Amino acid sequence: MKKKVYKLSISYDGTNYCGWQSQPNGNSVQDEIEKALKIILKENISLIGSGRTDAGVHAKEQVAHFSTNAKFSIDRLIFSLNGLLHNDIRINSIEDAEDSFHARYSAIGKTYRYHFSFGTTHSPFNKLYSCHVKENSIDIDLIKKASSYFIGKHDFKSFANESDNKKNTIRTIWQINIKRDDNGFYIEFIGNGFLYKMIRNIVGTLLEVGNKKISIDQVEKILLAKDRRKAKKAAPAKGLFLIKVHYNKDSLKTFSKDS
Amino acid sequence: MKKKVYKLSISYDGTNYCGWQSQPNGNSVQDEIEKALKIILKENISLIGSGRTDAGVHAKEQVAHFSTNAKFSIDRLIFSLNGLLHNDIRINSIEDAEDSFHARYSAIGKTYRYHFSFGTTHSPFNKLYSCHVKENSIDIDLIKKASSYFIGKHDFKSFANESDNKKNTIRTIWQINIKRDDNGFYIEFIGNGFLYKMIRNIVGTLLEVGNKKISIDQVEKILLAKDRRKAKKAAPAKGLFLIKVHYNKDSLKTFSKDS
Repeated sequence: MKKKVYKLSISYDGTNYCGWQSQPNGNSVQDEIEKALKIILKENISLIGSGRTDAGVHAKEQVAHFSTNAKFSIDRLIFSLNGLLHNDIRINSIEDAEDSFHARYSAIGKTYRYHFSFGTTHSPFNKLYSCHVKENSIDIDLIKKASSYFIGKHDFKSFANESDNKKNTIRTIWQINIKRDDNGFYIEFIGNGFLYKMIRNIVGTLLEVGNKKISIDQVEKILLAKDRRKAKKAAPAKGLFLIKVHYNKDSLKTFSKDS
Repeated sequence: MKKKVYKLSISYDGTNYCGWQSQPNGNSVQDEIEKALKIILKENISLIGSGRTDAGVHAKEQVAHFSTNAKFSIDRLIFSLNGLLHNDIRINSIEDAEDSFHARYSAIGKTYRYHFSFGTTHSPFNKLYSCHVKENSIDIDLIKKASSYFIGKHDFKSFANESDNKKNTIRTIWQINIKRDDNGFYIEFIGNGFLYKMIRNIVGTLLEVGNKKISIDQVEKILLAKDRRKAKKAAPAKGLFLIKVHYNKDSLKTFSKDS
């Protein structure tokens, strides 16, 4: 009998996890959900996510899928999973998916946001969810200008992690939106895919521009150099959120251009 | 020599504390700051807050004062305190205050907000900072209508904790504003002072109205009964924030009426 495929929407606070992906000695989000699924469905379930998120990185909406012959009520499964899981991981929904659905290979793009908070001190309420910067020492307009170099199809080798050196490092960023919010501002990246640590590496470099430590021109040079040693220190994981995994063009339209 | 008086603005995430006020066996926010002040200033300092907040209640801005003969740079003291304190307590500012300033007795009013979050599950990012309700099961318009009974000068005995039974339970609420935000909505209370657990007791009753478990008319009856047993269960502490302590009328003007 052909197994049925289920698509999950998951939120998590990444603070206490080694990241999404299962690791030999780590406590990953994937492991936690697989353990809970095994308890409820009484079989080993392989959960396949849309991609990795690093230790400390959060997800407003990660997507994953699994397939099984087990029979269950979807509402009861959501309820039971949320009962077993620690409350820093929440299953938002589970849907019947088409047989061909694959959380990773069916995805056409992703939206990430990197959050900065202002204030004389790092607010206790944002400390795990943002990078703290001083409002009067950072020039957001410079960051906006520099960010335009990253839009489009580029070889992001300078912003890839060293372990990605032999892989294809060409990606397309469709939009970068920079917006103020109640606590500070965020930089939103919408693209067809992102290399391991690519966004944190780009944000680290943009932060140097905003702090006037490097010029806008240098950003272009770093990108063209295709050399990881040229880029600046990665921004801390805690400011980064996976916001949405896109499976069709309509879902992209909900993310409008910066106005 | 007359001691100098200093006014502190403090933010804290109340999750891991027994509340603001020092308690024999508890870890209070006040204790944590007094311990840090003692280490830095090498003397016992009594920190006087504008009032108590319960275990689990948060503060965007609590105000406190202390007096000392010690000489120090204010900027260095802020820096050192924030270095010693856990990052769920932040000293936002310290100012020279007038000799007559008293964090509690000089206050003319306070603003509190109670936050609710929507969503099929309680978001991992709001779980410590809001009460989770289902959007389609709650009627905010009913809550708005019912909240009008509390505006003005009333005997809030029905919403006081039992230990407050013999005290003066008359208070004035100047404004109640109910606003939607990114995560759900909040109820804002601006008044000349609030009894122990009064806001959580009022919110608990308003929630019953919103869930259509009691009628708007019953709210007036509960208020007029002056009997704690008539009011509904207190709302959980984690949704409540002390937003501002007001020391002059100008600071009240920054809080505009619900539009």
